[in-house]
Parts: sequence; C-alpha cells; structure tokens
Amino acid sequence: MSYTADDHRHMARALQLAAQGLYTTEPNPRVGCVLVRDGQVVGEGYHQRAGEGHAEVNALAVAGEQARGATAYVTLEPCSHHGKTGPCCEALAEAGVAKVISAMQDPNPQVSGRGHRYLQQAGAEVSWGLMQSQAEAINPGFISRMARKRPFVRIKQAVSLDGRTAMASGESKWITGAQARSDVQRLRARSSAILTGIGTVLADDPAMTLRAEQLGLDNADEVVRRQPLRLVLDSNLQTPVDAAILQQPGETVLVYRDAPGDRVQALQDKATLLQRDTSDLAGLLEWLASERECNELLVEAGATLSGAVIDAGLADELVLYQATTLLGSNARAAFELPFDKMAEQRRMELLDQRRLGDDLRLTLRFNHSSLNHPAGEQ
Amino acid sequence: MSYTADDHRHMARALQLAAQGLYTTEPNPRVGCVLVRDGQVVGEGYHQRAGEGHAEVNALAVAGEQARGATAYVTLEPCSHHGKTGPCCEALAEAGVAKVISAMQDPNPQVSGRGHRYLQQAGAEVSWGLMQSQAEAINPGFISRMARKRPFVRIKQAVSLDGRTAMASGESKWITGAQARSDVQRLRARSSAILTGIGTVLADDPAMTLRAEQLGLDNADEVVRRQPLRLVLDSNLQTPVDAAILQQPGETVLVYRDAPGDRVQALQDKATLLQRDTSDLAGLLEWLASERECNELLVEAGATLSGAVIDAGLADELVLYQATTLLGSNARAAFELPFDKMAEQRRMELLDQRRLGDDLRLTLRFNHSSLNHPAGEQ
Repeated sequence: MSYTADDHRHMARALQLAAQGLYTTEPNPRVGCVLVRDGQVVGEGYHQRAGEGHAEVNALAVAGEQARGATAYVTLEPCSHHGKTGPCCEALAEAGVAKVISAMQDPNPQVSGRGHRYLQQAGAEVSWGLMQSQAEAINPGFISRMARKRPFVRIKQAVSLDGRTAMASGESKWITGAQARSDVQRLRARSSAILTGIGTVLADDPAMTLRAEQLGLDNADEVVRRQPLRLVLDSNLQTPVDAAILQQPGETVLVYRDAPGDRVQALQDKATLLQRDTSDLAGLLEWLASERECNELLVEAGATLSGAVIDAGLADELVLYQATTLLGSNARAAFELPFDKMAEQRRMELLDQRRLGDDLRLTLRFNHSSLNHPAGEQ
Repeated sequence: MSYTADDHRHMARALQLAAQGLYTTEPNPRVGCVLVRDGQVVGEGYHQRAGEGHAEVNALAVAGEQARGATAYVTLEPCSHHGKTGPCCEALAEAGVAKVISAMQDPNPQVSGRGHRYLQQAGAEVSWGLMQSQAEAINPGFISRMARKRPFVRIKQAVSLDGRTAMASGESKWITGAQARSDVQRLRARSSAILTGIGTVLADDPAMTLRAEQLGLDNADEVVRRQPLRLVLDSNLQTPVDAAILQQPGETVLVYRDAPGDRVQALQDKATLLQRDTSDLAGLLEWLASERECNELLVEAGATLSGAVIDAGLADELVLYQATTLLGSNARAAFELPFDKMAEQRRMELLDQRRLGDDLRLTLRFNHSSLNHPAGEQ
C-alpha cells in the first residue's frame, strides 16, 4: 500500500488528536480519528475517557451526513466489540464511510483484524500500517498489555552525573529542580499504576499522587480526577498505618508475603492487601495487567527495587533525570545491579534527550525489552 | 561604547579566523583579525603557529596600502612586546590603521592595556569589549595562565549512566564509540599537556598521543607535528621502561617524589624526571604554567587522580562522555570523591550537550572554578 502526502498529513493530525487523551483514556488506548471528504476535513474526534465516545464515534458526530463517502484516518484499528459503547466498525459502516486507513491493527491477538474484516465485508476499502511506529509509541502500555499480558514498565530515577541518589548516611534532598519534578508528575499522570518499595515508604514517606498545580497541564483538574493505582512492595507489611501514601485519594495496594495478624488487621481498612510471592515480579506484572487493566507502570523506587526490575529483564524504558552535580564515590548507587563481568552490562537505546532547567532528561529503551519492535509480536 | 551590527559581523568573522588556530598556536593564544575600509573587508588573518606571523601582521600583509584609514577588528588586544615577531600595535600604527576594535584586553596584568595605549598615542581610535565572552571562550588556557599563573584544567572521563568506568575486577573495555574517541583526540590536540596517573599507565599502557587518522581534522597532518606534553604522576617511578607512553614522539615527564637510584637511572634517558611533592597538585599546575607555558591541561586519568584534582578545587571543566549503558553497582566509580555530606557535592553548570553516535557528551563548568568570569579577574 502506498500513501500520499495528504494521507500522511491527515494521519499525523489523527495522532495529534490521540495524544490529547494521553492522561485520561485509561485503561483504554489513546485514539484519534479524522474524516476527510473531497479533500476537506469534515470531522475530527479523539477518545477522551473510558465510558465515553470513541474517537471514530466522536468524529462521526461532527461530520454528520458528510461522513458518507468519506475516508476515515484512525490511529488504531476500529473496535469490533460491544463494550461500554457500540463497536466503531459498525458505526463507520452505517455512516457510509467509503475508505478506512488505520495506523495499526488491534494489538490484542484475540480480536486483531476483526474490525478491518467487518469493514471490508461492509464494502469499505481498508488498509493499515500508515505511520505505524508513531501510533505504537503513543500506546506502549495498551500494546504491552494486549500483546504481552503485562504492563509497559518505565523506571524513573533522579541521579547525579556520577550515578548517585543520596549520601551513604541516607542524607538526601531533591537534587533535581522544579521542571524535572513537574515532568515526573506527568509521567505519573500517564501511568496506570506506580510501584515503590517499603524502603522508600519508610525513608521518604511519599504520597505518590498527582498534584494539579505541579502537572503543568491545561486539563490538570480533569487529569487528577483519576489517581494512578499505588503499589508498595512490602514483604512483611511494615507500612505504618499513618504513612502518607495511605491517606490519599485513590487506591493503595500493599503487596506482602508474610505478616503478623495484627499488621493485617491494622492495615486492611487502609489499603488493599495482596498476599503473593513478593520476589515474583513477573507474576506481579501479570496480575496488574489481568486484574487491574494496567497499561503503563511507573517504577519510582530505590536502588534495590529498581535494580531488581532491571536485573529481571522486565524494564522497558528508563527515564533518567540527571542533576549536573557529583555526589561522590561514597554516595548511594542508583541501581542495585551486582554485575561482575562487562558482559552483564545493560545497554540501552537513547530515544530522547533534553534539558529541563538546570537538569537533563534522558529517555532510554532497554535493549532487552521485548517491546523494541512491538509490531513484530502479533 | 556602542557597536553596530556590522561591527558584530566583522568581529564574529575575526573570531572564526581565530578558531582556525585552535590546534596549532600553542603556546600562543588563538587570535583573528579583520581589516575593513569603507565597509569592505580589505584583509583577514589569523595566528597559525608560534614563531610565525600574528593575526594583525597577516591581515596587514593582505591589505597592503588599503590598510590606511581602515578599521581593525582583533579578537585580543594587539601585542606591545618584541617577541619572536615585532609588536603588532606598531605594525598597525605604521600601516595607518585609523580605528582598532578589540574583543578583549590582554589578560596578562603586566602588559594589559599597553597595546591599546600605544595605538591611542599614535592617533588611532581604540575601543575594546566587543563580543568579549566569545573571545574569552576561545582562549581559556592562555587567559588562565596569564591571569591565574596556572593552566585551564579540563577533566575528561567516559562513564556509564550509572557513573562507572570499569568492573570491580578491573575488567574494562571501551564503553564509548568511535565518534567519542575521535572527539577525545581533538581535546588532546587543543591541550598543551595531558596528565595521567601511574595507575592508568600500569593498567592500560596508553600512548597518550595524537593520531592523525583519528582526529577528523582537515589539517590533521599539521596538528600532529606537535604532540602535547605528557605527564605521569608516578610517586615512586613505577613506569616500566618499555611503557608505550615512553616510546612516542614528543616529551614525557614523570613526576615523582621518591625512587630507588636504579629506577632513576633506568628512566632518565627515556623521560624527563621531575622530583616534587606529588601531593601538591596546585604547585604542579604552577610549574606547568611557568616552566612549560601550559595553557590547557587535559586530565585523562583514573578515579583517584581525577577525583583529587576535583576535590582540590583545581578543575575548571569536565567533559563527560556517557555511554548509554549500566555497568552496575559493583563497578568502579568515575571519581574518587569521598564525600559524607550533601553539602560537599560539586555542582556544575552545563555549557553544552550533544549526541556523538550512540553516546552523549556533556561539557560542564565547575561552580568552584575561578574562571567562571575570567573577565572579572584582571
């Protein structure tokens, strides 16, 4: 299939629309749609919030009768299932859309291709693959959950240029500036869930919430209506009853292995208690995907847990905030990764680098991530 | 003094010319000169090599009689001393130049202002300060040697994103790519001298030379005619007689404190032996400036020596090559800096960041460097 410059332009606009749902579609994918008839855009739409209209339905509502004979540019294969809203492929066919161009097929192997086949059988011309990698980049979590049955795992860490996070004594304070911290808020906002460890809870007592005033988003008030699920890996249920993380809106899950009955009793009204093998990180990720529809998981943890996730080959992306300082050779390592040989090093691919105030932000994809080529996994 | 857009344009060209001497003027400063009469450029010149013509003299030679009544844009105050060539201020006055605009005064407090005064007394209109910070940036070493009586100290280090250089066992290999290594060659080429430690000599047996084919410069063959002075901090003269660093063109200085007579005897024909208190890094820098006219010193050393230079507050700049990998928490630190408290951290200012192949290069100025505002030191 060969596409024209106009096709690319319309799909780029659809991707732009999809991105408007970055912080709100959860657990649904971010999807955008542009309807074009006789070279004119007759309708645009994007999915804003689960339970509300899909991108295609919103665009059709704008286009009305003008949808007849139009071409639909959609960033994801139109759905074929009866969920909270009717299937989009039926809506497009009923409206008389003549041609459908999708950026990618549905990543769920159970339904992939069904929407496209339905549209073909209804008489529409159908193709897919236009700007596919851009479309994949907008939904790494949804694709991961559908294709791998686990979330896309993003590790966030703030370090000095010598790779340290705090002094050996535990003395620490923010080493990065306000812009970097605001950026972390947006990483949280796009995540379904945030994972931390009991060490961080005991040392820093973090709230792990979205704060509207720090998000730096026009729709911040709407974004904070959903707080990402908070998970604490807390093998023996040491989280204090008055820990800040337990006093916030939204849900906190304490993942534990063994705990005295009085700890269970003290905490069971304050949090969701999940008893599991806490060393089984892969199993926890599967649980998050299957039980909590978790697309993107943000790991905001200390060296031990962050290192364990990397060591297990479960990390897809690293977002590294670098403060332009040296904390010295006694200071604490950013990642507990007890490698002995050069061959064990973890190489990454640099996706993006930028300056945030006095700090730097690097976005890296782990070479071991099986999501390097998500398109190849279907 | 207020300058026009044309003044800025001509000085920018003079700076461009000056930069052409970046790798060859040693131990002289890099200087450029543009002569303009009636809005037309009538002569350009730059200083290429010590012992050969200065920028002003080269530009005058091009302009000939057209220099009469012209304006000279010079990146550094014209010299007033009789060195290997005659004083430039006299040459400019004799050629009948009517106006002289310098980017900066001579940084040597002993002669600063003399060239300008001579020209004023000869009847020329004189001003200075146009694009001064750009002019300073081109000669950090010369300015440091003149104003502080020690070299500008640049530390180079190649690290992983977790701040490590090699495995605990000592196992190491190049973690950065060919582009970064070629960039290091250019750092060497602009330096008067390179400092390393005996640990690096024993572990890696480096040659520490310029190699024409790796420089990536059009004038590489000319650049390598001068090899930077090589210094090894080698307290007990442990450098092997057959060490690679002793077999290269150019001079190697072994700085030692105490050594058995047979070591001195074995090495005295292979290197310059300098007996000093090897813990006195500040004194060594003063020696380099006064005895060897050292402008820019490149520290290419292990964690111990690099850390010591930083700890002593003697480092001006850090050029950090980051490989997008994690070497793990057992691996060796990049800088031996045994800080205990957050207050001891070394903050830096980011001057430049760029990608070099798969690696990143950060150029940082230490906040403790007294060269942050060299103009203020005169």
